[in-house]
Amino acid sequence: MSTNITNITSEREPDAPRSRQQSLGVFVAPESVAIFGATEAPNSAGRVLMENLIRFPCGATLFPINPKRKGVLGIRAYTCLEAASVPIDLAIVATPATAVPDVIRECQASGVKGAIIISDGFRNGGAPGAELEQQIVAELRRGQLQVLGPSCLGVVCPRTGLNATFAPAMVRSGGVGFLSQSGSLLTALLSPEWSDHVGCSAFISLGSMLGVGWPEWLEYLGNDPQTAMIGVYAETLGDTRAFVRAARAVTPRKPIILVKSGRLKTTACDTDGQTKRLVDRNDVLEDLLCLAGVLRVESISDLLRMAEVLSTQPVVRGRRLMIISNASGPARLAMDAVRREGGELAVPTPATAAALDALLPSRTFHENLIDLRDDASAERFAQAAAIGTNDANSDALLLLLAPYGTIDPFRTAELVSHLNLNRDRPILASWMWGAATPAIRRVLNDGGISTFATPELAVRALRYAWQHADNLQDLRQDSASRVEVARLDARSEGERLVETARSSGRTELTGGEACQLFAAYFLQASETCVADNPEVAVHLSAALGYPVALALCGRRDPLPADVAAVRLHATDAHGVIRAYRSLGAIVREHVGIDIFPRVRIQPMLTAERCIVSLHCSIDPHLGPVLRFVAVDQGEVVPGSQVIALPPITSESMQRLFRRRRFGEALQSLCKRHIVAPDLLGQFLVSLSQLVVEQRSIKAVQIDSLLMSRERVVALGPFVRLHSSEVRDVNLLELTPGCDSPDLPRAEPSEPSTSVWS
Amino acid sequence: MSTNITNITSEREPDAPRSRQQSLGVFVAPESVAIFGATEAPNSAGRVLMENLIRFPCGATLFPINPKRKGVLGIRAYTCLEAASVPIDLAIVATPATAVPDVIRECQASGVKGAIIISDGFRNGGAPGAELEQQIVAELRRGQLQVLGPSCLGVVCPRTGLNATFAPAMVRSGGVGFLSQSGSLLTALLSPEWSDHVGCSAFISLGSMLGVGWPEWLEYLGNDPQTAMIGVYAETLGDTRAFVRAARAVTPRKPIILVKSGRLKTTACDTDGQTKRLVDRNDVLEDLLCLAGVLRVESISDLLRMAEVLSTQPVVRGRRLMIISNASGPARLAMDAVRREGGELAVPTPATAAALDALLPSRTFHENLIDLRDDASAERFAQAAAIGTNDANSDALLLLLAPYGTIDPFRTAELVSHLNLNRDRPILASWMWGAATPAIRRVLNDGGISTFATPELAVRALRYAWQHADNLQDLRQDSASRVEVARLDARSEGERLVETARSSGRTELTGGEACQLFAAYFLQASETCVADNPEVAVHLSAALGYPVALALCGRRDPLPADVAAVRLHATDAHGVIRAYRSLGAIVREHVGIDIFPRVRIQPMLTAERCIVSLHCSIDPHLGPVLRFVAVDQGEVVPGSQVIALPPITSESMQRLFRRRRFGEALQSLCKRHIVAPDLLGQFLVSLSQLVVEQRSIKAVQIDSLLMSRERVVALGPFVRLHSSEVRDVNLLELTPGCDSPDLPRAEPSEPSTSVWS
Repeated sequence: MSTNITNITSEREPDAPRSRQQSLGVFVAPESVAIFGATEAPNSAGRVLMENLIRFPCGATLFPINPKRKGVLGIRAYTCLEAASVPIDLAIVATPATAVPDVIRECQASGVKGAIIISDGFRNGGAPGAELEQQIVAELRRGQLQVLGPSCLGVVCPRTGLNATFAPAMVRSGGVGFLSQSGSLLTALLSPEWSDHVGCSAFISLGSMLGVGWPEWLEYLGNDPQTAMIGVYAETLGDTRAFVRAARAVTPRKPIILVKSGRLKTTACDTDGQTKRLVDRNDVLEDLLCLAGVLRVESISDLLRMAEVLSTQPVVRGRRLMIISNASGPARLAMDAVRREGGELAVPTPATAAALDALLPSRTFHENLIDLRDDASAERFAQAAAIGTNDANSDALLLLLAPYGTIDPFRTAELVSHLNLNRDRPILASWMWGAATPAIRRVLNDGGISTFATPELAVRALRYAWQHADNLQDLRQDSASRVEVARLDARSEGERLVETARSSGRTELTGGEACQLFAAYFLQASETCVADNPEVAVHLSAALGYPVALALCGRRDPLPADVAAVRLHATDAHGVIRAYRSLGAIVREHVGIDIFPRVRIQPMLTAERCIVSLHCSIDPHLGPVLRFVAVDQGEVVPGSQVIALPPITSESMQRLFRRRRFGEALQSLCKRHIVAPDLLGQFLVSLSQLVVEQRSIKAVQIDSLLMSRERVVALGPFVRLHSSEVRDVNLLELTPGCDSPDLPRAEPSEPSTSVWS
Repeated sequence: MSTNITNITSEREPDAPRSRQQSLGVFVAPESVAIFGATEAPNSAGRVLMENLIRFPCGATLFPINPKRKGVLGIRAYTCLEAASVPIDLAIVATPATAVPDVIRECQASGVKGAIIISDGFRNGGAPGAELEQQIVAELRRGQLQVLGPSCLGVVCPRTGLNATFAPAMVRSGGVGFLSQSGSLLTALLSPEWSDHVGCSAFISLGSMLGVGWPEWLEYLGNDPQTAMIGVYAETLGDTRAFVRAARAVTPRKPIILVKSGRLKTTACDTDGQTKRLVDRNDVLEDLLCLAGVLRVESISDLLRMAEVLSTQPVVRGRRLMIISNASGPARLAMDAVRREGGELAVPTPATAAALDALLPSRTFHENLIDLRDDASAERFAQAAAIGTNDANSDALLLLLAPYGTIDPFRTAELVSHLNLNRDRPILASWMWGAATPAIRRVLNDGGISTFATPELAVRALRYAWQHADNLQDLRQDSASRVEVARLDARSEGERLVETARSSGRTELTGGEACQLFAAYFLQASETCVADNPEVAVHLSAALGYPVALALCGRRDPLPADVAAVRLHATDAHGVIRAYRSLGAIVREHVGIDIFPRVRIQPMLTAERCIVSLHCSIDPHLGPVLRFVAVDQGEVVPGSQVIALPPITSESMQRLFRRRRFGEALQSLCKRHIVAPDLLGQFLVSLSQLVVEQRSIKAVQIDSLLMSRERVVALGPFVRLHSSEVRDVNLLELTPGCDSPDLPRAEPSEPSTSVWS
């Protein structure tokens, strides 16, 4: 009975090498499908699944596996895979959770290529569920079986016809591939609101990703010729670095639009350590997704809306928007929103202005908003749109129509969409309040115009369109620029220094060695050292070279904040001793004890300021990361932390600079002429290269990066080495205490400004 | 023929005193209406207006004024008002603009009470239009005629039946009074989307407000018993201070929801001086509207949505939201949005948790999100909602339903709305993607549940609901607290000081007098003075009292930024001379000239820091304003400016502190133990009282407000007086150069920190 739904048009090359592309292909285009848990019990998962597989034929032969039945819905059932005696491409598992480990073992043994585990009740089913999950994981290690799920909704592929889900209908075929950890995205796709507007190349529900995860599916859809764009709903990104790498390989060719929900936390949980995981921080994620060229949106509606906009509108060239409206209120509010988002109102060219002047009864585009007034007719509206779309000073056009009695909304839509509109820019429209009927929407969409229920949604789409254009721009720049930023012998110089250190039994470089290593990468560095009695202070000062500056170490707690615990310009041994004693006197006076204080000794560099504090460390989820904060007048600028993943380019660094508080701090310092962002970017790029190339390095820490207009100097860089030969991957150790948002240091050092002012 | 539409049920008290309330009442409930420009020409304004007045009878007798016709649409027409020989309440003017000044003159002469000028083509009609406008203004000065418009859409009042607009239908009667400068708000109100949900007590189109403006209408609707809430669309607020005052009188009793579009500016205009108008700055407007208790929203949809929410839901008590959903994805995204907006996920009480445990197959509310899973039935959904609404740990409930095949959206809506839900908290719902049919929306609304097309819109409404609750809280606090913050003789002491100054021919107080005046208001102040040679420095130091600190004046440009141009702790004349010479040496060294530098001499206050710089000034649109910025380590904190309108209370001041960068700067200073926000608030409240009471004061300027944990000291307060006796109103002069966003001072003073550290 099964033959009646068999479709043998698709031919398989026998024994072709099994690339990952092919191996995932089995999930959307199987030739033989076994269904574990197939049943006729009404409303059961096994029943609905069978119905969908029959109702939407995909060319695969179905093999229900059910030892208790001879057939399911008229299709012959088998007691086990072996009984089917046919090679099975894909198993769909809808049994109770307890049976799943055995099913997986059976699939593995029979050479099944892929399994979709729809069954639920694993990690969210308490301890017994977690135990079952472990059994599956152990089983998967033993063979080649690819697993999707568990706790997933399944797979839909309109092109092949496969519907291995409970979805009540088939989604429309189209160019958007969906990867989702929520079934509701599929529900949305099937809704009247979206089903006509977004077509789907494949819908993959990933579940809890025990087997195949984001990177594999991104690569698969990235290479799938049917997929023009990828839409992702994610609750967790798993190995974030792998996600970013996979996404980055796709985005120069195909847009990825992502909506990601955060970890849910109650107030109680907020105070525990979990929120401090770097990868859970929203700003970090934003940076990473930006690096990957992914367009992040905030809701499922945004995701589908932008899929529609990006697939129908050209990439926007700039931020100059022309608004043509017959209602000034909504137009002005839309313009406010555009300005809030960093856009601007286009200033029409003289030619455009003249054409509009000729069309409109009086010059009604005060302040460049093309207000047609509430008595505008359909004809006047369409003519204005035609003029507007050819304006050379605009990058996008937004048409707003309020249904006054004087205008026919449907006729206006027809006239506008039949115009031979200039298609070099996005054209967006909102027929407002009651004028936004499905028929009108269809007419406008057929004319290549994206429609929105409200002006605000149009502006929101425009904001995302700008962000997408920026992403593409950044990706192009990144791939264009690769500058060598080190001496030719930098790598071997590093190896030599490491060898020297290791042969002396050390796992860290001396200050001098660290400075040598930095020099090989064109990085200026200067030593710093700590003395705890006057004699050592003199000795160290002589070694550093006069003049030096002395500053109390770790003085923050015992001393009032406004005591200047710095002595500058010690030019000889006597000066050092005098300065040291004077610092001792401060401690005596304020803390009341007469001790030799710990004093930090630094070369006296004039006119330079500490503006950055920097760590390289490893994050368990992100791998090696470069983190730095702006320091202004000795104080860390709150919220200025920037995260970057080496290797980095100057361009990506400049982009990070532009963001948030770090950029503001940098600008503020620039205004006071004490910083050159280019030099800082160059420094960080070189440092990133050092960290990538020198694979014996375990961690690098620079408490103070000093900067003038001419140079950047790392003060007392600290380099720790791996005790073994080299590390496998480019991973840097997580320095203790540097996991909090704003880089508190193990030993708070005094504000460094005073030393340089 | 006119009698057939006359309705004489409303009785007017003859010759009652004409309060403003009554005088504006004529616009919504006239007994006799003259229509200038009434005509039968198809699609003309005069025709549509007449049709609406006839179609929607309001009890008024109509008198078309048209010298060319005997009647209009069957109603007898008159050549002029006099010909009608009946007292006319309301004139509606729809003639060409050129005829309007004569019409107004005629109305004025005939004792017409109010006129609605619908005609357009005045200030936006170029120079001739502006001239016509001036003629109308001149005419209005001559009498009592109240004018609405010109360029307005007219008035709709469903209660009386009046429709003096071109609106194609009558809006539903209800409790929201609308004041609008855009006709599209009326269009929106008539749309299928909103017509069932928002009822209207009056819709007033204000136009360009030559006559009656915001304050009068706010007062009118504030006192109108039919109006429970006021919705405002504004393009300009006119006299902002009057708007704020009028709104503030209403908001403790009735919510005002406002959407305001900004001034449109092209890039070119952004660089001119106009954007610096204080009243055009968005942050200033936000502050003012917050003071007034007005809920500002961003779009017309927001306005109507919040009118619906505030009229059906109770005021929200707190920010703990419970989410119950059968789709985890949208629920998690909604939660993310709630957290972004400063809300939190409610932690259910043990009783709620137990009830849910009993209901749900397994504990499915991980992390306190009540996820019913995608196989939830209508019954389970409704039962969970019933449990959730009684949870004592929640302040609001959000129900999310995705239309999986397993649930009947309509039946679920019915079950939920028939529950005897706890009505002590807002209950919001989003039946998503195709489940949001009009029928379902009606069922839920009838059950007292507010419905939203998407979860994001529900969260947006919740954000506004929080803001509204905060506004109400603030208004209550403000009216509760009135503390006296001055000596009993403060007012007379001020008058005495002013008298002394005036008798010496001065228009400013000396440093000593200013300090005395401040002392009368419990404000600590300390003098500061400038010397330009060592002898004067010694003389001034002795007058101030030792020890003193000396600092170079205006040194920023000639000297490198990192030269410390301050000498502390001069304890006698020799110390002062030594310090003075040392500062001179710095100038010689760095600038290369050997001069007596200008040096600022201040009493040596230890452990205090300049944290605020402050001006009182007058803004042409806002009247007297108190503006201050945070100063950290001698640098103005960017974006930290706060604006307040005296008189102010401690509570409103604390609210201003919480906002934006000023609050952040204050917190950062608090962490370093050098600031007491309560003392600062107290200081500003007292200063505001000084400024309000001492009506001879023209301006007050305090460059440096120093602060320790124990006290706040104004350094060198500068008080300027009016040359005439007293001023009429409490207006303070605009200090030159203080109109830019961050209070640059005429003479940049050195960072003050160094003096105190």
